[in-house]
Amino acid sequence: MTITASELAAKLGGAIEGDGSVALSAVGGLEEARPGDLSFCKDVKYVKIVAGTKASAILLPLDWKDHVPCAAVIRVDDPNDACMKAAEIFAPPAPVRTPGVHPTAVIDPSVKLGKDVYVGAYTVIEKNTEIGDGAIIDAQVFIGENCRVGAKTLVYPQVTLREGTIVGKDCIIHCGVRLGGDGYGFNNGRHPDGSIFIEKIPQLGIVEIGDGVEIGSNTTIDRARIGRTYVGPMTKIDNLVQVGHNVKIAGYSGLIAQSGIAGSTQIGMGCLIWAQAGISGHIKIADGVQVGPQAGVPQSIDEPGKYVIGTPAQSLRDVAAISLAPKMISKLRSDVKELKADVAALKGA
Amino acid sequence: MTITASELAAKLGGAIEGDGSVALSAVGGLEEARPGDLSFCKDVKYVKIVAGTKASAILLPLDWKDHVPCAAVIRVDDPNDACMKAAEIFAPPAPVRTPGVHPTAVIDPSVKLGKDVYVGAYTVIEKNTEIGDGAIIDAQVFIGENCRVGAKTLVYPQVTLREGTIVGKDCIIHCGVRLGGDGYGFNNGRHPDGSIFIEKIPQLGIVEIGDGVEIGSNTTIDRARIGRTYVGPMTKIDNLVQVGHNVKIAGYSGLIAQSGIAGSTQIGMGCLIWAQAGISGHIKIADGVQVGPQAGVPQSIDEPGKYVIGTPAQSLRDVAAISLAPKMISKLRSDVKELKADVAALKGA
Amino acid sequence: MTITASELAAKLGGAIEGDGSVALSAVGGLEEARPGDLSFCKDVKYVKIVAGTKASAILLPLDWKDHVPCAAVIRVDDPNDACMKAAEIFAPPAPVRTPGVHPTAVIDPSVKLGKDVYVGAYTVIEKNTEIGDGAIIDAQVFIGENCRVGAKTLVYPQVTLREGTIVGKDCIIHCGVRLGGDGYGFNNGRHPDGSIFIEKIPQLGIVEIGDGVEIGSNTTIDRARIGRTYVGPMTKIDNLVQVGHNVKIAGYSGLIAQSGIAGSTQIGMGCLIWAQAGISGHIKIADGVQVGPQAGVPQSIDEPGKYVIGTPAQSLRDVAAISLAPKMISKLRSDVKELKADVAALKGA
Repeated sequence: MTITASELAAKLGGAIEGDGSVALSAVGGLEEARPGDLSFCKDVKYVKIVAGTKASAILLPLDWKDHVPCAAVIRVDDPNDACMKAAEIFAPPAPVRTPGVHPTAVIDPSVKLGKDVYVGAYTVIEKNTEIGDGAIIDAQVFIGENCRVGAKTLVYPQVTLREGTIVGKDCIIHCGVRLGGDGYGFNNGRHPDGSIFIEKIPQLGIVEIGDGVEIGSNTTIDRARIGRTYVGPMTKIDNLVQVGHNVKIAGYSGLIAQSGIAGSTQIGMGCLIWAQAGISGHIKIADGVQVGPQAGVPQSIDEPGKYVIGTPAQSLRDVAAISLAPKMISKLRSDVKELKADVAALKGA
Repeated sequence: MTITASELAAKLGGAIEGDGSVALSAVGGLEEARPGDLSFCKDVKYVKIVAGTKASAILLPLDWKDHVPCAAVIRVDDPNDACMKAAEIFAPPAPVRTPGVHPTAVIDPSVKLGKDVYVGAYTVIEKNTEIGDGAIIDAQVFIGENCRVGAKTLVYPQVTLREGTIVGKDCIIHCGVRLGGDGYGFNNGRHPDGSIFIEKIPQLGIVEIGDGVEIGSNTTIDRARIGRTYVGPMTKIDNLVQVGHNVKIAGYSGLIAQSGIAGSTQIGMGCLIWAQAGISGHIKIADGVQVGPQAGVPQSIDEPGKYVIGTPAQSLRDVAAISLAPKMISKLRSDVKELKADVAALKGA
Repeated sequence: MTITASELAAKLGGAIEGDGSVALSAVGGLEEARPGDLSFCKDVKYVKIVAGTKASAILLPLDWKDHVPCAAVIRVDDPNDACMKAAEIFAPPAPVRTPGVHPTAVIDPSVKLGKDVYVGAYTVIEKNTEIGDGAIIDAQVFIGENCRVGAKTLVYPQVTLREGTIVGKDCIIHCGVRLGGDGYGFNNGRHPDGSIFIEKIPQLGIVEIGDGVEIGSNTTIDRARIGRTYVGPMTKIDNLVQVGHNVKIAGYSGLIAQSGIAGSTQIGMGCLIWAQAGISGHIKIADGVQVGPQAGVPQSIDEPGKYVIGTPAQSLRDVAAISLAPKMISKLRSDVKELKADVAALKGA
């Protein structure tokens, strides 16, 4: 949304100085701001950075004295706080999803839609599926047979839920998420004649997502071989994450972008798996464990709250010991050189 | 599917004890099972874990004597075997795709559909494409011009095949797979005036997928710069895998989740690339090589069947040598300290 | 496209020898080529590889004398050059997108479509969005409210642009790209009663993509918390890449497959982030920096043009020092052993 500096000052309860007619449409940090942006500074120690900003307007505290290069200044008690309020004003309005079913949605007659559900254009919902009250199923979504989506859950466009998937209430499922794909499971070996065979193991289970879970764009969570792959309540999953079949995530955990959890692994309560980390299959991670970025965890971690890094993942101390090795070796080499000289002298004596 | 313990016992040929009316709808391991689940135990050594299970019913061997906390017990000869049968009973029924074309599918008149093909709602198939007998093209799929999809291949919802892509028979392509995107290729340098230029290199080839290949959710396989990116028969690819342009995978290999293979690399027969591993471009990997999780392979591997780990990928022995370094250094430091004392004493003598 | 060797020779201005009626449909390297392929060789030093090729026809220089196993030979001045021309002839024809809106597209009346725009089947474009002249919005795309897509930009099938996203002109957005998903941001802590809370931080900003940017299949770029996530002009992003909220990429950079950039990080001009590399949040990367494959960058890199590898990312020299540690330690151990013997002898003397 675009607004003049004067209008914005009025909305923020601030005092305008300079050209109140300048049009503003976004918030930008002092260094990245462009013409048309509002920036902000609370502390005079950034005066040099302020002097270089390209923002058209700036939020400053009441006692700021130095010159600023912006067309307009808005004086406020707390520039950080006012900036957050301005960001809400500039934010693209969240699309309104008035309850109702788009005429192009293909919904099987057996589907049970709750009250005040929204279903967008070209969405497909197959038989025996139930959608809870107030849920929003956006455009171009595919929901297979026998699924359940909880009340007030928001499913963004182009998500797929394969048959039997269960999603709790108050969840947010971002674009391109794939729930319930077949787990990766094959039997292989050799026929009596020596030729290789590879046989698919039927993936007979489901995916179940607890209440209040958020799942980021293009993340994939596979259905269980038998039973359920489970993501517990309030777990927050970022983009492009892989959750293998039969994984159990107790709840209240975070999985950051591009991390992966292999099949049948159990993650305790309140864990944090950082970006690009990988956790092997068939292991258990205790409550509150943190796995650092790009770490690889080959074995169970039994100690609650432990922080591990590296591949294979270990404590910070153990990783540091390896990175210090070159320095230690260099010191040892000079010691040994000196000793050799001493011993040669002694032998000569 | 929900079924009573008595009905299940009858289907499994087992004997019911306790409350046969208890409703069951899933299989769960002893520790994860919830009320409504069936669990199983074959061996009396797990008696303590059995004592804590929350399962409503349990499959036990005929000679089990200890108390169990479940409402119902089903006695069978082989609890593991019976459990697999129960899992099949509970499994969400696979959706039936009766041959036919959904009226909303947009299919160019030049497209050749085989016998008994299924095409789902809102799928788009462009001109000159051929779909083999018995293939299932699910809802919301996009298949570009001049593609060929083999007999009995199953394409799940929201897959895209760019123009010219060839998929063999008996393949399974999971949701969100992208076949035939442009390979990453640019010429860059500087104009005579010093300004940078970046020019796209036309990606003129195709993707060809052999028979019996399975490709996991949201995996991407790029079209060749010229010729073909090739995934050989019976290769099984997991979720979120990247296969670059002009890669050749001979066949019968496995690529686990989030692994990536850079452009023009050749993978031999029967290789296994573990999760999050990366293989550089323009190299060759011999038959039967295994690349460990998160390993990074910068150079060709000529030795068939070699197992490598780490980045840069090397043998287990070489990686172990590095991880043992801190311990070795510690030992060396105490040796050197002792030697210094000895030498000092000798010099003093 | 399939063509006979004679027809191809005529198109390339070459001289045909052998069976000019053989049908050709693709280019293949000497080793991978199959019957029906055209291969090529410029240099007689590959004569043995030529002798084993399965190609049906081959491009050879005028002075090539050795026997070849192909049905047809096409003599040309420059086989490499002729091969590129042949690849263009064989390439699946790029689909023609004649300007116009498919009758099934659901486009809000408030949307402003430029001149000569193409909109494919089942695409959804929501209110107040603007599409520039000559843009191609392919089938099954979702473009939310208040977006802007620049002139001549090509959006492949099954892309999603959430509300407020801005894409420049001359961009290419591949299948499955997700622009404008919510950034990963949560406040968490404990209630006075000790229970955990996790609250979503509103993501009020947008994604802005500069001119000439290409974004690979299934890549995700999150909207800013406030302000904009920015991808500068001519940046080329590969498949399955993650760009976090509030990241700023100055321009002319390359992000290779499966790499990830965490929130609020700034990437200078002309950087190259190799495959599977990860860059932490809230740091700055100087112009021209290269981050090696699988590297992990925890801290800002201030030195323009620096090349870093490893996790934590460091110079090639520092990484080499660690990988040399086992060899150095082995040498030290033999030195120390020798010294001990010498000292023991001296003490005994």
